[in-house]
Amino acid sequence: MTPIITAFENSPDRGRGLARDFRVRWALEESGVTYETRLVSFAAMKAAEHLALQPFGQIPTYEDGEVALFESGAIVLHLAERHPGLLPAEPGARGRAISWLFAALNTVEPPIVERSTATLIEKDQPWFAARLPLIEGQVRARLAPVARRLDDRDWLDGAFSVADLMMVTVLRRLGGSGLLEEQPSLVAYIARGEARPAYRRAFDAQKAVFLAAQGGARA
Amino acid sequence: MTPIITAFENSPDRGRGLARDFRVRWALEESGVTYETRLVSFAAMKAAEHLALQPFGQIPTYEDGEVALFESGAIVLHLAERHPGLLPAEPGARGRAISWLFAALNTVEPPIVERSTATLIEKDQPWFAARLPLIEGQVRARLAPVARRLDDRDWLDGAFSVADLMMVTVLRRLGGSGLLEEQPSLVAYIARGEARPAYRRAFDAQKAVFLAAQGGARA
Repeated sequence: MTPIITAFENSPDRGRGLARDFRVRWALEESGVTYETRLVSFAAMKAAEHLALQPFGQIPTYEDGEVALFESGAIVLHLAERHPGLLPAEPGARGRAISWLFAALNTVEPPIVERSTATLIEKDQPWFAARLPLIEGQVRARLAPVARRLDDRDWLDGAFSVADLMMVTVLRRLGGSGLLEEQPSLVAYIARGEARPAYRRAFDAQKAVFLAAQGGARA
Repeated sequence: MTPIITAFENSPDRGRGLARDFRVRWALEESGVTYETRLVSFAAMKAAEHLALQPFGQIPTYEDGEVALFESGAIVLHLAERHPGLLPAEPGARGRAISWLFAALNTVEPPIVERSTATLIEKDQPWFAARLPLIEGQVRARLAPVARRLDDRDWLDGAFSVADLMMVTVLRRLGGSGLLEEQPSLVAYIARGEARPAYRRAFDAQKAVFLAAQGGARA
């Protein structure tokens, strides 16, 4: 069967490719896999039918008739294991790519999400201005090793892999913060990712969903 | 060759099995794999030799002659793929286990780590008392789906797997917070994990390292 993913019916990122379905769309495009998208509203995400697929009431999910997965990390790894192009075959290089994939999700992303959440939810709190530099210090401490790694490399380890796909999407969440610009090698890295044809196709697909939702809201 | 992992020479968790080498030790014990431990000081973790293995200057790392890995998630997944006992063979069940593994690391752990960090670093800040309930609300929102899932199950999906190994170690970081006790199914789940013989062996191994470091410090 054609794989089916879920995505926001009306994404809070306003079509900027920051929602987590984007990672899955990009991996599907890199893998040359045609897919269908089922859009879910915020209400539907918390209903029993969706919770059976995604226990935390989030997007994305992925179903292909053989497996039903949740968590963007699990889905892109599944695609990378089954299709050529996102994971090297040699065990050492494969292990390094998967290490960087987990690093993107468990070491680099958490302080970035914490910064986004604080900016969104605590912006009017009296402590916001004093806390922001603390959080940004944590973000910088995680960006510096990635930037150092990319100083003399196009991608994290040899050819483009699932590690780069994930790291680029994680780093893009810092757009507008000014933190990326402190590390020119990260800005160039993100630009290389964004220039890939598969990235463009995935970006246009999620953007079309957002624009359709806006059109529907206006109609 | 015998696999070699790295761990703290003097763990800040004081031998409570909360450092991330513990996850790897537990997975090695469940897999019946004999291993060696190389202890690293905080200074050595930031030196070039260790950074070549672990770009963020953290522990653990894992080397077995074929692969050199970092990130506890990547290491336990590698062990689960190569040894029986931590991943089901049937593709659907395997996919669900890996989805829960990523959920433990990317959905459940981040607010738990944020709570620990705030308690450690911001305890004397004027905003700490006002912020703590906000963070704990985020933690509760991630615990509730896990507790619901475990209401009528011993483990997250069928037999014990790498997903449970990771989730138990993530949840244990909340010990002393009072948040686990709000969800009796989580307390029982953690106790089931801690009762496994492989868990005990791994726990004793990391505890022995801590006690030896204390003895050395006193000598």
